[in-house]
Amino acid sequence: MPEDKSFHMTPDEFRKLGHQAIDWIADYQRNIESYPVLSQAAPGQIRAALPVDPPAHSESWAKILEDLDRIILPGITHWQSPNFFAYFPSNNSGPSILGDLISSGLGVQGMLWATSPACTELETHVLDWLVTMLDLPRKFLSTSEGGGVIQDTASSASLCAILAAREQTTQFQANQQGCNGKLVAYTSSQAHSSIEKNVKIAGIGADNLRLIDVDANFAMRPEALKKQIEHDLANGRIPFFVCATVGTTCSNALDPVAEIGRICCQHDLWLHVDAAMSGTAALCPEFRYIHDGIAAADSYTFNPHKWMFTNFDCNCFYVADRSALIRTLSVLPEYLRNQATESGAVLDYRDWQIPLGRRFRSLKLWFVVRHYGIEGLQYHIRRHVELAKRFAQWVANDKRFELAAPVPLNLVCFRHKGGDEANQKIMDRLNRSGDLYLTHTRLNDRMTLRLCVGQTHTQARHVERAIERICEEAARI
Amino acid sequence: MPEDKSFHMTPDEFRKLGHQAIDWIADYQRNIESYPVLSQAAPGQIRAALPVDPPAHSESWAKILEDLDRIILPGITHWQSPNFFAYFPSNNSGPSILGDLISSGLGVQGMLWATSPACTELETHVLDWLVTMLDLPRKFLSTSEGGGVIQDTASSASLCAILAAREQTTQFQANQQGCNGKLVAYTSSQAHSSIEKNVKIAGIGADNLRLIDVDANFAMRPEALKKQIEHDLANGRIPFFVCATVGTTCSNALDPVAEIGRICCQHDLWLHVDAAMSGTAALCPEFRYIHDGIAAADSYTFNPHKWMFTNFDCNCFYVADRSALIRTLSVLPEYLRNQATESGAVLDYRDWQIPLGRRFRSLKLWFVVRHYGIEGLQYHIRRHVELAKRFAQWVANDKRFELAAPVPLNLVCFRHKGGDEANQKIMDRLNRSGDLYLTHTRLNDRMTLRLCVGQTHTQARHVERAIERICEEAARI
Repeated sequence: MPEDKSFHMTPDEFRKLGHQAIDWIADYQRNIESYPVLSQAAPGQIRAALPVDPPAHSESWAKILEDLDRIILPGITHWQSPNFFAYFPSNNSGPSILGDLISSGLGVQGMLWATSPACTELETHVLDWLVTMLDLPRKFLSTSEGGGVIQDTASSASLCAILAAREQTTQFQANQQGCNGKLVAYTSSQAHSSIEKNVKIAGIGADNLRLIDVDANFAMRPEALKKQIEHDLANGRIPFFVCATVGTTCSNALDPVAEIGRICCQHDLWLHVDAAMSGTAALCPEFRYIHDGIAAADSYTFNPHKWMFTNFDCNCFYVADRSALIRTLSVLPEYLRNQATESGAVLDYRDWQIPLGRRFRSLKLWFVVRHYGIEGLQYHIRRHVELAKRFAQWVANDKRFELAAPVPLNLVCFRHKGGDEANQKIMDRLNRSGDLYLTHTRLNDRMTLRLCVGQTHTQARHVERAIERICEEAARI
Repeated sequence: MPEDKSFHMTPDEFRKLGHQAIDWIADYQRNIESYPVLSQAAPGQIRAALPVDPPAHSESWAKILEDLDRIILPGITHWQSPNFFAYFPSNNSGPSILGDLISSGLGVQGMLWATSPACTELETHVLDWLVTMLDLPRKFLSTSEGGGVIQDTASSASLCAILAAREQTTQFQANQQGCNGKLVAYTSSQAHSSIEKNVKIAGIGADNLRLIDVDANFAMRPEALKKQIEHDLANGRIPFFVCATVGTTCSNALDPVAEIGRICCQHDLWLHVDAAMSGTAALCPEFRYIHDGIAAADSYTFNPHKWMFTNFDCNCFYVADRSALIRTLSVLPEYLRNQATESGAVLDYRDWQIPLGRRFRSLKLWFVVRHYGIEGLQYHIRRHVELAKRFAQWVANDKRFELAAPVPLNLVCFRHKGGDEANQKIMDRLNRSGDLYLTHTRLNDRMTLRLCVGQTHTQARHVERAIERICEEAARI
């Protein structure tokens, strides 16, 4: 068997082609404003340009890069465009891309401490840093009884919270015997769709999720929560979990966490706080009020992959009692046994998440925190909030439009006074033009436009141009 | 507010630092054999070298790269070393790293078709290619009633399979009302630990997972499965799901899928096939027998991130009836509604997985398939199997050692005849030496060493050196 034949790239080939890939990205960054933000591809267009059969033989890098430009780019919706105002952002940044690149290059699988101690320890360390940076309760530190872990998304983090709460309430019997349909979970009618998805996954059932009423600002009404819990208790049900949202997806509403926490304490319920996008704002002392009351939380989650310039996927999930989480999710087969685990001196993050395997994701987060420093992160968060307020000010001053919700941070919910159809037309025309991308929601059963200022590179001129373009389309109504 | 101040990397800075990062990886690839494969770090060593407080101000790239060498590298277990024979591999390769780099650079979040059509369509297309490449049943093609999707891990894929099976059996009532403790799942006593973890997560309960006996080759005994199902039915239980394994983690045992499939058909049970590592072997026609009988499977999964040179995370999950999966996992809030989704002409992969958000993972898989071509992938798979057989031949010929299980592909289970303690000593000494890394399992309640030949760059000389080193350590017993 000859040793010399190989289809692998040599390190020197990798070096050369790697430089080309980096150049491709740098050029993409430079030209990004020239692309329509929302892809204008038709369904099936990308597939139609791809060969039906897989390649029998090796193809050249030149051909691959050419296809990237010719086939893939027209099918990209440009989340990294400064004119991206849709959904919540999903940002990258230079240091984050490079951290993720090094992670791919090291190719570490960090399921156990032993399978790469640095993967586990850097993650623990950076997540402790973030407790300090966001001024979170110290019980979330790994040096206390709690700790943080990186998950792929807030959806998965919330699922882990629901499972740990389920097990704590059932004294770990649901894990053994399965669910019995008696547990009841609570969140607001404005909470993220993942809460409903997760109660289904966890065997709780959507019928056993109570969507609590909200106030005029779309924040959960604690007295309604209290009443519902009491009603369920009176009916022999077992309340076990409440999810409060700090910055809902629809309107960035802030649930009254302190009051909700008091109710949870009173009834011994697990309080999970979902601050997926808005948590990042707590980097700035003046925005930390959004976390008022989280001292009562059993778990907390926010996404650096949204507003903290760290590319997807990177969610931070904290628990106050790591033993409950670990006991919920730990299964130890013989082939994973090792001395470090048995010594009890290390954390094995496989027991903190749904999957077994895990990537070295803390590298990109570490690079971001070090590249920007707290100062740099604060600077950009403050600018985004300032730009959003400036946009909201324009809405408030333009007689054709109105604000649809308060603007605590960087999301502006607004609408044209001409009704649903006018708003749909304005949005569709803007998005089809490719000049910017925004999305909608419904508030008080009315079509509402959402403009979120949070993309890494969004500056004043992009927001000003958005206002201009919205005015142009409004004039055509 | 000044426009010019910014902490972001400019495209030109990114280009320069990106080249340095690529060079760092190329150097790492070149030097990888000089590092001890298993990290020799002590618990807490990495954290102790990191500053307690997060950086207030921006730090330089030079400092970050220096810390990568000084702090992180000593804490790395080198999964990309050709002397890595532990667990199952988790490989990267040049084209895969570059595909993942472009994905980070594009920064696409592909939860919906509309949020980047290319992300969805390339994924569908490459997963259809793999149906052809592995000669899987055509019902798994997206052009039939089924289709494929990329998940993070086989754990998550199996969870999705369990959930879809649960909902199909309960006519989607478990999603609504929660589980009721009556459903029963089946797998072999040698199946991956994620099956137990997943039945817990899904509210089925570990007590309701039957671990079916295996034969002398550690493959599931179909008659035992049949008997157990009949017993459960007689006791009013509801069998709903069977997981067959093609290549168990312990010993690479191949469950008799065809016979298991007949039993599943007879009782109308969902058959899931977990071929996490070994599925890749089906790239070569001579190994396709491992999939005999999967025509009966409702779902199938294998991991290109194990043995197909595509870096973590990249699992392929196929279903025969995508509507069951989608109906199980779909929740549609207003803020995700869009015309493409409502037209019914597109797939939204958020409905095929646990989390909402998703990364553009098919790029790296596309790059790998195109760089190697089918020919290149087959070449390396065949070499790995040949090297494993060569190692097994040595074991069979050395009187001090014995094979502990058949060697169908690239995993060799073997042991020193001196008993558990001798094997533990040999393994610990080898791993501590840093020359190679292998792990263990228990078979027939005896400590058994596992040597898996599957790392991207493992060649004959690495396997020969492993034999030499094992002999050296055996001589010291």
